[in-house]
Amino acid sequence: MNYLTKDKKILIVGLGLIGGSYADGLSRAGYEVGAIDSSADSIEYALAKGIIESGACEVKEDYVRRFDLIVFALYPHVFVDWIARYQDYIKSGAVISDVTGVKLSIVGRIKAILRKDIEFVPAHPMAGREVYGVRNADCGIFRDANFIITPTEGNSQTGISRVRELAGVLGFKNIVELTPERHDEMVGFLSQLTHCIAVALMTCKESEHLVEYTGDSFRDLTRIARINEEMWSELFLDNKDELLSQMDLFLRNFETLRDALADGDSERMKEMMRLSTYRRGFFDKK
Amino acid sequence: MNYLTKDKKILIVGLGLIGGSYADGLSRAGYEVGAIDSSADSIEYALAKGIIESGACEVKEDYVRRFDLIVFALYPHVFVDWIARYQDYIKSGAVISDVTGVKLSIVGRIKAILRKDIEFVPAHPMAGREVYGVRNADCGIFRDANFIITPTEGNSQTGISRVRELAGVLGFKNIVELTPERHDEMVGFLSQLTHCIAVALMTCKESEHLVEYTGDSFRDLTRIARINEEMWSELFLDNKDELLSQMDLFLRNFETLRDALADGDSERMKEMMRLSTYRRGFFDKK
Repeated sequence: MNYLTKDKKILIVGLGLIGGSYADGLSRAGYEVGAIDSSADSIEYALAKGIIESGACEVKEDYVRRFDLIVFALYPHVFVDWIARYQDYIKSGAVISDVTGVKLSIVGRIKAILRKDIEFVPAHPMAGREVYGVRNADCGIFRDANFIITPTEGNSQTGISRVRELAGVLGFKNIVELTPERHDEMVGFLSQLTHCIAVALMTCKESEHLVEYTGDSFRDLTRIARINEEMWSELFLDNKDELLSQMDLFLRNFETLRDALADGDSERMKEMMRLSTYRRGFFDKK
Repeated sequence: MNYLTKDKKILIVGLGLIGGSYADGLSRAGYEVGAIDSSADSIEYALAKGIIESGACEVKEDYVRRFDLIVFALYPHVFVDWIARYQDYIKSGAVISDVTGVKLSIVGRIKAILRKDIEFVPAHPMAGREVYGVRNADCGIFRDANFIITPTEGNSQTGISRVRELAGVLGFKNIVELTPERHDEMVGFLSQLTHCIAVALMTCKESEHLVEYTGDSFRDLTRIARINEEMWSELFLDNKDELLSQMDLFLRNFETLRDALADGDSERMKEMMRLSTYRRGFFDKK
């Protein structure tokens, strides 16, 4: 721990599930954590539970300036608006990071306006739950999860390693670096496409009685069909071209299987199943 | 327990994961359980573990005739072949059931050849795991799971209630009756379609390094992409028309979401997400 010594003060902007879980993990690790959230209820709850040491519902210069590291856990457009409006309040030399699920568009928009004496190290914690708000905050969701940093040419090794330290403190197991482009491709496939599949599947049929007939597979496949429509529609649109290409890739593969069935081509179906079994095997290894 | 008193002898034909788990549950409940399986290793293992009290690798008349209730846990075509070849060995008045994942085609084929003094009560336990064989047998997989009986006009209330008792002993929570047609529609949607989705998704990309970037959603969606290709390709073909219509229903919904994204139609995407969130809600209630 070269940078993130216990005297560093950390501010979380946006105290929802992810921001709250960051605050929870960092407070437990002994850091002084502050938070800004427009909801007085969220701030009061987090103060009462000891998840944060201080908090504010409005953005005040003297409060923001106290912090060395700021993590933004906001909807993409709210993050951009915040920087445009309040970045003058941030201490010179501070490091800022985020948790945004798209990278290319957000990195470009932030870089275009950010002061040069503040370093933005974009990051995406690959963890979440189908519940919302600081009342569900729990740093346990990060344990053994993946953490993706998407450095750009403006980033220093020092800045990157500071955010690596942050991820380590929070319990992430596997901290990787990807370009923003590669991140958006991976996340388009692994996360956004899977949410599209779950939503499409869950909208197919009236479901009140399906639960009486189902096994675990439908339940597992649709867990993420309980979705925050404001956030995900924004994320989808911010990654539109990449997600469309991942959706089309899936459509082609699904149609291949469909056509094999329609043709009664058992061998072709089995071939796909053998390939899927083989490829799924990589996910079982630790 | 009117019928399934502890003096009843139960035979499991096919000692794989499901057959073995039936045997495990029934033996634990105090019944005398026998098994027939072509694998000597499976029979020996089950005898050594006390999962069965007797077993045979070949089908012998004097052995089969000892049993009052016989459950077939075989691939569909193997089940039909078995009945065609060995049904004369079955005690008159016995009840037989099965665990087959398709119903209309299997019920028709069995009914067409079965002796009139044996009652076949078709059933489908909605439980499973992505591992195989009696060595993974565990009656715990049935706890609180759904159990579907698909009676036909040939079934008596007595016969049906005997299989209901069997499901109760095994720990199933929700025992429902559906027509074979309705079963195949439900299972085509809830189970077969979900396996098609998982297989198609898992075959999209080379996956060796995906695990370093993934969150839980892709892992959950592809759990069932590890699939027994012999069994599932047979089940798919045995339910071909129904499964094709479920696959096409999903395709239409997926394409609706895809087109909403391509059009930048945020409101339409949100509408689908709100509907999926609402419908997924039924799966959380107990």
